Amino acid sequence: MKAAVRQEAAAAPAAAHEPAPAFAVVEEVSPQVEGGRFAIKRVVGEDVVVTAACYAHGHEVVRCVVRYRGPGGAWREAPMEPLGNDLWRGEFTVDRVGPWEYSVACWVDHLTEWRDGFARRVDADDIRLAARVGAELIARSAALCSRDDCERLEPWSRILREEHDLERLRLTAMDETLFQLALANAPRDGLSASPAYPVTVDRERARFSTWYELFPRSCASKAGVHGTFADVDERLDYVASMGFDVLYLPPIHPIGREKRKGKNNATVAQEGDVGSPWAIGSKEGGHSAILPELGTLNDFKHLLMAARARGMEIAMDIAFQCAPDHPWVTEHPGWFRKRPDGSIQYAENPPKKYQDIYPLDFDSSDWRGLWSALRDVFLFWIEQGVCIFRVDNPHTKPFAFWEWCIAAIKRDHPEVLFLSEAFTRPHVMHRLARLGFTQSYTYYTWRTSKQEIIEYFTELTQSASREYFRPNCWPNTPDILPYHLQNAGLAMFRIRLVLAATLAANYGMYGPAFELGENRPREPGSEEYLDSEKYQLRHWDLQRPDSLAPLITRLNRLRREHPAMQSDWSLAFHATDNDALIAYSKRQGDDRVLVVVNLDPHHIQSGFVTVDLAALGLDVGVAYEVRDALGGTSYTWYGGRNFVSLDPQRAPAHVFTLA
Amino acid sequence: MKAAVRQEAAAAPAAAHEPAPAFAVVEEVSPQVEGGRFAIKRVVGEDVVVTAACYAHGHEVVRCVVRYRGPGGAWREAPMEPLGNDLWRGEFTVDRVGPWEYSVACWVDHLTEWRDGFARRVDADDIRLAARVGAELIARSAALCSRDDCERLEPWSRILREEHDLERLRLTAMDETLFQLALANAPRDGLSASPAYPVTVDRERARFSTWYELFPRSCASKAGVHGTFADVDERLDYVASMGFDVLYLPPIHPIGREKRKGKNNATVAQEGDVGSPWAIGSKEGGHSAILPELGTLNDFKHLLMAARARGMEIAMDIAFQCAPDHPWVTEHPGWFRKRPDGSIQYAENPPKKYQDIYPLDFDSSDWRGLWSALRDVFLFWIEQGVCIFRVDNPHTKPFAFWEWCIAAIKRDHPEVLFLSEAFTRPHVMHRLARLGFTQSYTYYTWRTSKQEIIEYFTELTQSASREYFRPNCWPNTPDILPYHLQNAGLAMFRIRLVLAATLAANYGMYGPAFELGENRPREPGSEEYLDSEKYQLRHWDLQRPDSLAPLITRLNRLRREHPAMQSDWSLAFHATDNDALIAYSKRQGDDRVLVVVNLDPHHIQSGFVTVDLAALGLDVGVAYEVRDALGGTSYTWYGGRNFVSLDPQRAPAHVFTLA
Repeated sequence: MKAAVRQEAAAAPAAAHEPAPAFAVVEEVSPQVEGGRFAIKRVVGEDVVVTAACYAHGHEVVRCVVRYRGPGGAWREAPMEPLGNDLWRGEFTVDRVGPWEYSVACWVDHLTEWRDGFARRVDADDIRLAARVGAELIARSAALCSRDDCERLEPWSRILREEHDLERLRLTAMDETLFQLALANAPRDGLSASPAYPVTVDRERARFSTWYELFPRSCASKAGVHGTFADVDERLDYVASMGFDVLYLPPIHPIGREKRKGKNNATVAQEGDVGSPWAIGSKEGGHSAILPELGTLNDFKHLLMAARARGMEIAMDIAFQCAPDHPWVTEHPGWFRKRPDGSIQYAENPPKKYQDIYPLDFDSSDWRGLWSALRDVFLFWIEQGVCIFRVDNPHTKPFAFWEWCIAAIKRDHPEVLFLSEAFTRPHVMHRLARLGFTQSYTYYTWRTSKQEIIEYFTELTQSASREYFRPNCWPNTPDILPYHLQNAGLAMFRIRLVLAATLAANYGMYGPAFELGENRPREPGSEEYLDSEKYQLRHWDLQRPDSLAPLITRLNRLRREHPAMQSDWSLAFHATDNDALIAYSKRQGDDRVLVVVNLDPHHIQSGFVTVDLAALGLDVGVAYEVRDALGGTSYTWYGGRNFVSLDPQRAPAHVFTLA
Repeated sequence: MKAAVRQEAAAAPAAAHEPAPAFAVVEEVSPQVEGGRFAIKRVVGEDVVVTAACYAHGHEVVRCVVRYRGPGGAWREAPMEPLGNDLWRGEFTVDRVGPWEYSVACWVDHLTEWRDGFARRVDADDIRLAARVGAELIARSAALCSRDDCERLEPWSRILREEHDLERLRLTAMDETLFQLALANAPRDGLSASPAYPVTVDRERARFSTWYELFPRSCASKAGVHGTFADVDERLDYVASMGFDVLYLPPIHPIGREKRKGKNNATVAQEGDVGSPWAIGSKEGGHSAILPELGTLNDFKHLLMAARARGMEIAMDIAFQCAPDHPWVTEHPGWFRKRPDGSIQYAENPPKKYQDIYPLDFDSSDWRGLWSALRDVFLFWIEQGVCIFRVDNPHTKPFAFWEWCIAAIKRDHPEVLFLSEAFTRPHVMHRLARLGFTQSYTYYTWRTSKQEIIEYFTELTQSASREYFRPNCWPNTPDILPYHLQNAGLAMFRIRLVLAATLAANYGMYGPAFELGENRPREPGSEEYLDSEKYQLRHWDLQRPDSLAPLITRLNRLRREHPAMQSDWSLAFHATDNDALIAYSKRQGDDRVLVVVNLDPHHIQSGFVTVDLAALGLDVGVAYEVRDALGGTSYTWYGGRNFVSLDPQRAPAHVFTLA
């Protein structure tokens, strides 16, 4: 059979029916990342609004559609509407997680061109001939449609071919219903299509999440006692009551004993020192084991369930590096780089040495074995029920590894989220986001002035990078006590909290250090905490009357109650006449939140805010009520220019909701 | 043999020596058009300055190069220098016409990383071990280089391996010459390269040309007599003396007799009417024939030579459409669209009919035959010596045709230039430029206000489209007597002339209508000329004392003498405090031209020009002399702010050269 088919094809005159190259053009498709090399990101329920330049030569009329499909689904089409200047717009909604794709297709619409011309014709002969041209076009549609539709189109075509009465011909030709039917079934002449552009669709938490980080070993009810997963269980209500939905734990694996660091990063550990959770692996196991002092795998799985019962998820820390006594060091010596004396290369930045950490050699001759083992670490914990991973220093591992690893995991587990902890150069952070990380830590931690905040958040929320880079903003982390918080009072902590919680749909904090205003650096010039939990147990008094927990609770409730706070793209800044006052808003339909923050922790600051009424969808000349979700007070504002005065000792900000 | 090789490959452990995916990244390569889908444009002798983001993960040190090659040449490399923020810059010069390409390559530089670390080490053991690491790296370079170089690198490697004296080790390790030698020969670990991006390199006239259009049939010395190529010969000195280097002739082919249009586009021609040169083809021949009234092919070839002898080239008009009596209509009826009554479809825009013109059907079943015939039209005239084509209405033919046709011609004739006469929508004009047209007509013809001119020329000369869109600016054409020139005095013609000649490195005019100030429209509201040469002979009095020829001559001499005027990219606008005064400059090294034009043809306009000293490379606080190339006057200016007053009846502009 096959041979026969081939012969037929060879016998046919090749050029006779070969269509000319496509006449229609599709270009400037947006959104897309590097021509489809990487995916744009969305969460379930969001729209993908697609624009493109679509046209053909001369005055050819074109039509175009967005084609799209979800994971495993068939291609569907959404119409595109002209925006003028050869630009078109269409949209579709992504309704489940996983990999989607879309493409723009454009073709020449001879039917519309025919009808537009027909309507303008005046000579009788001309009209009759044009009607016959239309009859041919309609017959082409009839040949392609269902039998029912065909039975409507064929008589139409026949009348246009045969009718001689001019007035009837004209009326018949302009039949709108039949025209639309013919149009929908017309062959797509000169069809051209863009490449298919990928979309990674995540669950909603990718766009809106509220993180709390704590050290399980510091959760014991008694000071000096090593905390356990059971103690974290006890802590869950506290965390949930503040409104967090992600509880992130530093590594829970066995901690290396060889070259273990002591308190405050001392080179030599003292008896009883607990070591750094990021020095992973000991004779008790490696990346798939649990530090016995914390409990068992079953205890951990119970914790996962208990968190879920409170509407929270546990995010796990993945740090791909090994302590010298990690089992891989003896089981897979080839996964580590050797020095010329045969010893294993530890981490270093000459003259500094980090002899407690062995980096993995991603370029080793057994790179496939190593890469697979690392992927399997994720898969193991996914198996246990973990769905969110905070990845430690991903920027010190090759991009190609992450791209392969995340794709391999999301293929079967599209619900899994990855937070990139890459505090590094912009290009590197952005590439990690492009190649698959769901969320990314940001420079927010160090952006403090009004101008810095406006510039940075405008870049994060309004530039093209928002298609793939989802910011997660933290005022502090166990690694970073930023200078502005060092030895600072709670007023500064409140400012940084309000900014993070209201600027960013994804934000987090390292507690209880944050809510208790922990502010002592290890030494001047260092951003490390003194007596850091990274190297020792700490015991926190959560009942302190000055705890920021109530403010955190109010802010997180506001975030949950207001859809405007749950995404970043609507962020708009409003002018103020005082550089210590920053004003911005977010909006989702009728839900609007307007925030004014006093950036100065020491002085009352007053000034005028010029509200951008258009950004908030407010009419000029109509009064509106703003109600402070923190203070409870309401004001009636009128027009753009309104006076504000904020005392950092009382409240750092107005967080207004608009009625 | 082949089978044996295959068996060997199958037997080898596949993964053992398989390198990991590339670690280095190249992105954001600039310039490029749609990821290399289309070529950027340059002329011989120009530089291509390439920037890219090049980096690897972590703190890996990278190196990168621009690879490039000319037509038929081998790949060469130019070094790239870091600009900070992971951006790199390199450049190369294109030194002959034809298709070039370039690419950016980046790899991990372990040698530099090693040396940087070595310099910072303090422990003796550490230094000795690091020296041995260096010895291994140097040995890798030695293995890849010439025998001479190897004989220098191997001893170096040996010393680093064996030397025990720390001070000597340190000194030896830091040997700069040997280091550079090792670096130049180091294996390119983790190599990554961008795609190859195409460059179309044209001869210089693509960037700098001065066009004059005339109707040969109007060149007879006696009124009412049909001009010939011999008459054009006589006219060459006049055109050359004004400083033009391209003489563009409307179509010179036989003109259709069927449905010929009369004077002023009358539907019916009168006895003796000469018809439109764009209604191509009659029994005397088609696109490869010459209108007998103009002369013979030999006469035309003589004209080509005579023009060349005066430093000019003849540009030929190519209009792919046919009069009803064009030979193709009977020889290739399949190349035209049929109406249902069997007649051939003429051009129309209902209710308007252009029955003297048959469009070609680029989608016909014999499209290959048609497309080849059209390409052969170009090739025929190239054979006769034509090297520049002005293409009539290319936007009414498919893009795919032009892309194929121009590529097919430039493959063997890279010296040929194509000017696109597409007065249409921006996307269409830009696509024609991208797909291969060398130069493009512009909207300059209608841009008159200061703001319009600044916006449009900033787009033309500073946006990314300048990589492929080379503007050619015309104050008038036989099809366009723009409203501002209608019934206007010579002052307005002078303004439009100075603007075109000094804003655009490529400009042209339709003469003698332009230099003689022809300003009568066919009727109010029309941009057609009254008694247009498109439909009848005209006789022009070139000796009129008010002719603009002397001003044209001065401007064209300025353009030839000043390299600053010969390209567009240096164009910079300078502020003025009067909207009737526009100021701008161009610069090439030390050559600088500063132009101030009074846009108001009726009144003296005065005001202050704020010269952007930085754009001109002038020092603040140093006096400079400006000399008016039109008036001859010199002024000493000091600083940015300088007073100007221009009387449109005397001189529309200062065209200053700076000393």
